[in-house]
Amino acid sequence: MPTTLANLAELTGGEVFGNADTLIDRARSMEKAEARDITFATDPGKLEVAHRGTAAAIVVSRSLAGSLPLEADSRSYLLVDDAFLGFLQILDHFAPQPERAGIGVSDQALIADDCVIGGNTNIFPQVVIGSNVEIGENCDIHPGVVIISDVKIGDNTIVYPNVVIYQNTTIGKNCIIHASAVLGTDGFGYRMVNGAHQKIPHYGCLRVEDDVEIGAGTTIDRAMMDETVIGQGTKLDSQVMVAHNCIVGPHNAYASQTGLAGSVVTGSHVICAGQVGIADHVTIGDRAILGAQCGVPKDLPGDQTYLGSPCDVDSQAIRSFVNVRRIDEIRAVQKKLVKQIAKLEAQLESLCDNDPICGNDPNSAAA
Amino acid sequence: MPTTLANLAELTGGEVFGNADTLIDRARSMEKAEARDITFATDPGKLEVAHRGTAAAIVVSRSLAGSLPLEADSRSYLLVDDAFLGFLQILDHFAPQPERAGIGVSDQALIADDCVIGGNTNIFPQVVIGSNVEIGENCDIHPGVVIISDVKIGDNTIVYPNVVIYQNTTIGKNCIIHASAVLGTDGFGYRMVNGAHQKIPHYGCLRVEDDVEIGAGTTIDRAMMDETVIGQGTKLDSQVMVAHNCIVGPHNAYASQTGLAGSVVTGSHVICAGQVGIADHVTIGDRAILGAQCGVPKDLPGDQTYLGSPCDVDSQAIRSFVNVRRIDEIRAVQKKLVKQIAKLEAQLESLCDNDPICGNDPNSAAA
Amino acid sequence: MPTTLANLAELTGGEVFGNADTLIDRARSMEKAEARDITFATDPGKLEVAHRGTAAAIVVSRSLAGSLPLEADSRSYLLVDDAFLGFLQILDHFAPQPERAGIGVSDQALIADDCVIGGNTNIFPQVVIGSNVEIGENCDIHPGVVIISDVKIGDNTIVYPNVVIYQNTTIGKNCIIHASAVLGTDGFGYRMVNGAHQKIPHYGCLRVEDDVEIGAGTTIDRAMMDETVIGQGTKLDSQVMVAHNCIVGPHNAYASQTGLAGSVVTGSHVICAGQVGIADHVTIGDRAILGAQCGVPKDLPGDQTYLGSPCDVDSQAIRSFVNVRRIDEIRAVQKKLVKQIAKLEAQLESLCDNDPICGNDPNSAAA
Repeated sequence: MPTTLANLAELTGGEVFGNADTLIDRARSMEKAEARDITFATDPGKLEVAHRGTAAAIVVSRSLAGSLPLEADSRSYLLVDDAFLGFLQILDHFAPQPERAGIGVSDQALIADDCVIGGNTNIFPQVVIGSNVEIGENCDIHPGVVIISDVKIGDNTIVYPNVVIYQNTTIGKNCIIHASAVLGTDGFGYRMVNGAHQKIPHYGCLRVEDDVEIGAGTTIDRAMMDETVIGQGTKLDSQVMVAHNCIVGPHNAYASQTGLAGSVVTGSHVICAGQVGIADHVTIGDRAILGAQCGVPKDLPGDQTYLGSPCDVDSQAIRSFVNVRRIDEIRAVQKKLVKQIAKLEAQLESLCDNDPICGNDPNSAAA
Repeated sequence: MPTTLANLAELTGGEVFGNADTLIDRARSMEKAEARDITFATDPGKLEVAHRGTAAAIVVSRSLAGSLPLEADSRSYLLVDDAFLGFLQILDHFAPQPERAGIGVSDQALIADDCVIGGNTNIFPQVVIGSNVEIGENCDIHPGVVIISDVKIGDNTIVYPNVVIYQNTTIGKNCIIHASAVLGTDGFGYRMVNGAHQKIPHYGCLRVEDDVEIGAGTTIDRAMMDETVIGQGTKLDSQVMVAHNCIVGPHNAYASQTGLAGSVVTGSHVICAGQVGIADHVTIGDRAILGAQCGVPKDLPGDQTYLGSPCDVDSQAIRSFVNVRRIDEIRAVQKKLVKQIAKLEAQLESLCDNDPICGNDPNSAAA
Repeated sequence: MPTTLANLAELTGGEVFGNADTLIDRARSMEKAEARDITFATDPGKLEVAHRGTAAAIVVSRSLAGSLPLEADSRSYLLVDDAFLGFLQILDHFAPQPERAGIGVSDQALIADDCVIGGNTNIFPQVVIGSNVEIGENCDIHPGVVIISDVKIGDNTIVYPNVVIYQNTTIGKNCIIHASAVLGTDGFGYRMVNGAHQKIPHYGCLRVEDDVEIGAGTTIDRAMMDETVIGQGTKLDSQVMVAHNCIVGPHNAYASQTGLAGSVVTGSHVICAGQVGIADHVTIGDRAILGAQCGVPKDLPGDQTYLGSPCDVDSQAIRSFVNVRRIDEIRAVQKKLVKQIAKLEAQLESLCDNDPICGNDPNSAAA
């Protein structure tokens, strides 16, 4: 379903520079865009890359107007306030995000009698929901989801297929829980009794606040007592692990395979790149950024970037990475110094053979 | 349902120091406990922290009696043999662990005709069990579990929702398998044939011994031939990976995101903190402790703690961590030494201009 | 069901050296083989190990004939072209891989009306398939699999239990997708708007080419736009993560817990050992080998092995590992040098007390 650039201008509130009748088939990245495609560029460097391609049209922010050629020539431009946002609208035009189903509560879902389910919520077939569960309005609970018992889920929350939610879990509004995530499982706690690990029961709960997104296969433990918390607006990628009694602050973002041991506390807007590990009982300050594969053994102040395992402030970590590669050179210089000194010592000794006061302890000699 | 401290004393076999009529609403951690809460303290330091809070009562071990104030005053104490154990009993009083369901074998589970299922075992709806499967007594097989075929599960074992168990898997008694774990999958084995990876079939099995707990999303491969083993009493956290033909010893404990490559062998009571990686065919001795993010390329003797990647004995690893941060200083000193030596050389040279035998090879000069 | 060595020779196209009537019960590894077992050895070293055991017979490659004893004695041998391949055939004889079920499309699967399913394909009970899904011939879609919508799966592909496939995913022919893998999930992409992470919708797709195997619990994101690709013949172990817009080349092999951030591009035959992490937008050359726990912050040329985090070419990385452990020695030598130089300086000074031109700036002194 091709459309004209004029139509896309109307859709995005933009204006055309060039030929408004240009027919557009698809929206694609600047690397992939072809003759009847539209792409986008958010800065002069990317605009240059886009220009090397064959896209029929390019969405650019109005602030980039000065970087455009004087005449549109064979290529046209769509000028908008924010090129990326405008391009997202165009992507949505060509391949709209799937609409919500309207199936309501499937009679092929198994739901305990005492559950309360809000209006306009879809419970798909093959869902199993235990007792004392409350689900808000406009939720989607996809096939294969199992909710054990004693769970609350807020309005507008999506739970993708095969997610498992253990007892004592509360999930806020506007959350997205991706496939096969496991929420509220027992924490990893044992006491050593007669040489064997004796399980510590977990009486606490997991509380996921509003606007949280949780990735596929991510696992979050409930607390031993009190609660594990995922703060408002926080986003966890796939295969993240959050252990019992962690208090994750608001607006955090953790990339895949990051793991928090028990009782970690984080401030707001903390960022973890992939495969970060944080030791138990560590506190991380607001806006700290932990680089990929960071290992965090102790508390970290916020407003800093950290790298390495065990991690350092980025500038120190980078010095360490560079310095380790200088050890060969340090050793080579040291070997040379050892030889030079041996030679100096020998020379001095031979000089001293001709000097009556030399060769004694220098201090006593000076005396 | 508030209760008196006297009742909790009866429950725990403890004695009250202070007001036995104190009403208690909840059991909470020392950081969270409020006016009508009971908390606990296992050592004098924690007792001090608890004293700073407002808890109505504190459970303490009798061995701490000497650290208590002379008069109970506004706060009361419950003296028991083991404060943590006593507190667990009180936690259970206020929020008992859920009782086992008594649903038996659901007619909404799909079970092959030749399966044998023990008395008092619950098979929940939406469970699928293939042929030649034997399940013991008092087991719980939760919704969404799929057992492919040729599996044995011992008495009193709990399998949480959406676990998948492949063929040739044996699970012992008193095990707990958490949600979405995958047991007995094909190992990652290929032969390179004409530039392509050709799959090596996996004929072996997985044997999980008694009293094992396996975390959510953990994956364990069956053996190529012979068996993969998880030893008696071993506990694996969420998202652990154990590859084909590993022989994990008894009473091991591995924190989340730890991975064992193929054919690893571990002794008893081995501990891995989070994100540890052990290379294939490595053997780990009894009671070895591997710190978080340890990388283990070769065999390790037991009764030691290891850190780093590649790992070292902890004392050496800590020296290395510290030493790397000293390289700047080493270089600075070295630069100074280079200058000092240049100066010494120049001085000696100028001295030698006045000395007939100087400047020659020192040995020949000495001769 | 014991069989004679003669029968196994016929099965494998091999010839017996020793007693063709030897009765064989099982095929086992050289470490485990007992009196009525057959084992195998692929090189003289392993043959020696096998000789120490009690196996009744050993499969050896014809190229090893020279390493056999002159007379077979109490042990017999089966000579074949490729000992490992021959042994695999014998393993299969004793414990054949399970045959495909022949259940067809279960009426206990829930399948949207517009789906197209090829001949001889099994759709097991409890499978849920949304609209616009096309599945080829001879496929197995195991219980608990959920296919959201808009998915194509090629012929002869196996999808194990509880796998979830999101919209816009294409899977090729002859693929194996292990239990609880999640394919085509939303990428981890947000824009910071007024201090909150605003979700970027994902309009792209995931394309898995032919002959790919994907491990249990592995998660792969679909692209933001364009596509995420897993190249032909590539094998991913359990708990691997591939983020949005990655282009993984053909015949790659990634061991467990490896993670690729967004937009990584890899050549052909790239190998990652376990727990490797690759940063976003990095390109990896053909046949690069990344050691366990490698951290890859930037592009890497192919035909090299890399180690460490941040990684180096293996020879440099190994030097670094060794060098860090030499810092103590470097410091000790440096301390000695500092003392030696101090002594030399003092000696020179005392010498100079007797020398009129000494002690001035050496250059000016020399002038």
